[in-house]
Amino acid sequence: MADLILTSPQNPRIKTLLQLEQKSSERRRAGLFVVEGQRELHHCLVSGLGVESVFWCRELVPADFETAVLAEVERAAGRTGVPFRSVEVSRGVYEKIAYRGSTEGVVAVVRERRLTLADLPVKEHPLIVVLERVEKPGNLGAILRSADAAHADAVVVCDSLTDLYNPNLIRSSIGAIFTVPCVACSTEECIAYLKAHGIRILTAQLQDSHLYYDTDMTCGTAIVMGTESTGLTDTWRRVADAHIRIPMLGQLDSLNVSVSTAILLFEAVRQRRELIIDN
Amino acid sequence: MADLILTSPQNPRIKTLLQLEQKSSERRRAGLFVVEGQRELHHCLVSGLGVESVFWCRELVPADFETAVLAEVERAAGRTGVPFRSVEVSRGVYEKIAYRGSTEGVVAVVRERRLTLADLPVKEHPLIVVLERVEKPGNLGAILRSADAAHADAVVVCDSLTDLYNPNLIRSSIGAIFTVPCVACSTEECIAYLKAHGIRILTAQLQDSHLYYDTDMTCGTAIVMGTESTGLTDTWRRVADAHIRIPMLGQLDSLNVSVSTAILLFEAVRQRRELIIDN
Repeated sequence: MADLILTSPQNPRIKTLLQLEQKSSERRRAGLFVVEGQRELHHCLVSGLGVESVFWCRELVPADFETAVLAEVERAAGRTGVPFRSVEVSRGVYEKIAYRGSTEGVVAVVRERRLTLADLPVKEHPLIVVLERVEKPGNLGAILRSADAAHADAVVVCDSLTDLYNPNLIRSSIGAIFTVPCVACSTEECIAYLKAHGIRILTAQLQDSHLYYDTDMTCGTAIVMGTESTGLTDTWRRVADAHIRIPMLGQLDSLNVSVSTAILLFEAVRQRRELIIDN
Repeated sequence: MADLILTSPQNPRIKTLLQLEQKSSERRRAGLFVVEGQRELHHCLVSGLGVESVFWCRELVPADFETAVLAEVERAAGRTGVPFRSVEVSRGVYEKIAYRGSTEGVVAVVRERRLTLADLPVKEHPLIVVLERVEKPGNLGAILRSADAAHADAVVVCDSLTDLYNPNLIRSSIGAIFTVPCVACSTEECIAYLKAHGIRILTAQLQDSHLYYDTDMTCGTAIVMGTESTGLTDTWRRVADAHIRIPMLGQLDSLNVSVSTAILLFEAVRQRRELIIDN
């Protein structure tokens, strides 16, 4: 079921793939990004993203790969209308394109879908994570993973310094980048959206703040996080409905931003417990 | 204030240092480990560990390094009785020994202090984290950082596959390995200790469990975490006083173990709020 078989890492298709993995400018230009791993590819398909090509290595994939995974991609291609190409590659070529160094045997090129705030569904009591100037793709990926677990309605990254389709982000999110609506926009756009929808803005900051578990998170809530090094800008502090903090009871003075975000998200889950069916 | 100045990476002292950074067997044999960074060195000194030598690069450290940091190390050496040596190194040598690739200009060799369960102070309502077979040094470091913030009384690693003085662990803990008592022991020893001290054993597991926020954590509590991939062994499940779970409300099925641990630790903080002075 391969449309073509490649054994040379010098092939132009392989060079294009490597450029998409390595350069955010190339991803933006082409409107494409790269996903590695079977689980991640599955989440891509479930969320309706268009898969343009699957590079796979026969030595590494399960025996039913063609009838199971590739057939699933083909069916999805029928729905999305994105023409799909199956490219079998040699072990040597695969090792060159596998950016995680994994041996899952699958790397796919996928069409990006850039969501805007207007694309977010309007819900009654949304729970939204806002990240100002998040720097590390790994932190953003970890936050998306927690946002999936807490069933947050969206993650909004304001004035981001990282690309949503950075390979390290996709990896550390273990696919949550496809399951949680994620929007990149400016701080001004985000504030206007939250105010227009009556969503309370809770900014995480140590100074001049209430303990987070004393703060109501049952109505529409945006939890706004700054960077670990410099915290939130005054713009966010000024528009906040409440400033909240996690008590720092030890000798060090900070938590990892993805850990802080998870603690705050699951406090919202606890407070909204009547909304949760005991799974 | 340097006892000697080294400009060759071939010097035997540098070779010994690199071995300590790279090999856990060498650390165990010598009873020494390596710390990089000024903040980490400071936490070492505060916690009373014996610093044997400080390798520093004049180009990279602040102007008052000798009168401030080295003088602090000398005073600490007076208290611990560990003979201390100041070794100035060239930029080229420093770049070879800086395992984090940082430019802080300080790498120290420190005497390990292996705590046992018997070393832990007996407290009224201790809060303890137990990790079974934790694999990744980065996860253990992140958990120590959260344990510091939650003022947990100890982190106990059972049947650990990682070395407590792994450089990646020290780095990701941002020094919490020195501020939080950390014990490595067998599962059997740990269970015997918890039972003997009347500490409730709460095991984190998805099956057959209660929501974590419905579980009392105000008495002496041990939060027991397994690995992300295989969870806890039956040994722990059987001795548990309660099984607890974080609800997974999304499409993925797991949280990062350091994130899960932090969520559970801060639920204990929330429940113990009357013990906390509003800082």
